[in-house]
Amino acid sequence: MDPVTDVFTSDCPGREVLDHITGRWGLLIVAALKDGPLRFSQLRDRIGGVSEKMLAQTLRVLHRDGLIERNVEHSRPPKVCYELTPLGSELIGPLCELVQWIARRTPDIVAAQRRHDQSGSHTATGSHT
Amino acid sequence: MDPVTDVFTSDCPGREVLDHITGRWGLLIVAALKDGPLRFSQLRDRIGGVSEKMLAQTLRVLHRDGLIERNVEHSRPPKVCYELTPLGSELIGPLCELVQWIARRTPDIVAAQRRHDQSGSHTATGSHT
Repeated sequence: MDPVTDVFTSDCPGREVLDHITGRWGLLIVAALKDGPLRFSQLRDRIGGVSEKMLAQTLRVLHRDGLIERNVEHSRPPKVCYELTPLGSELIGPLCELVQWIARRTPDIVAAQRRHDQSGSHTATGSHT
Repeated sequence: MDPVTDVFTSDCPGREVLDHITGRWGLLIVAALKDGPLRFSQLRDRIGGVSEKMLAQTLRVLHRDGLIERNVEHSRPPKVCYELTPLGSELIGPLCELVQWIARRTPDIVAAQRRHDQSGSHTATGSHT
């Protein structure tokens, strides 16, 4: 099997997994957990702009995928901790490489956006045939 | 600067770039162009499930970001080709590593989803405090 074909096909399970992992919150949750377990409130504070609803929803999806574990600490009140499973930990390498590339190259991309907007070339890209 | 901090902050340009690149269609367009230029119709056929509207819109965003070039062939009728810029080509490595991991691990993730659904543990993940 061509490993790339798998995600290019709209009805294959790989496409669904791609969406879970590369969705904005999925990716940031995995990256946030790379150094160890975090509580819900710590995740919420670490990931700027995420709502509690979206965070809870994305954690449920990643838990169902077997990428994160959900551990209840027997304290009063009980606390829930999230951490990467061994499967989820395998994602740290590729995801952090991507995140670091973006951090490194964002100035070049912002410069390209400015050049594009100043050149007025956005008015000429309507046709694609 | 911690390179990861950049995308964890909701109002920084890196977060916008992250969305462009890891959005479902952005990622698949970059992966589809890894072997060379393609026309609009070829991209549409390669990427299962993408609408012409979403494809055109995502191509415009990636073009503005300086990640893809748009070349008009002087044929009759004129044809438009899309290809990765040198900046966009730098993404092939990290993105393909991620896509290949997903293709390789999708069976494990699907198995985890089945175990989760059969165990009924999805009913117990409502609380996150």
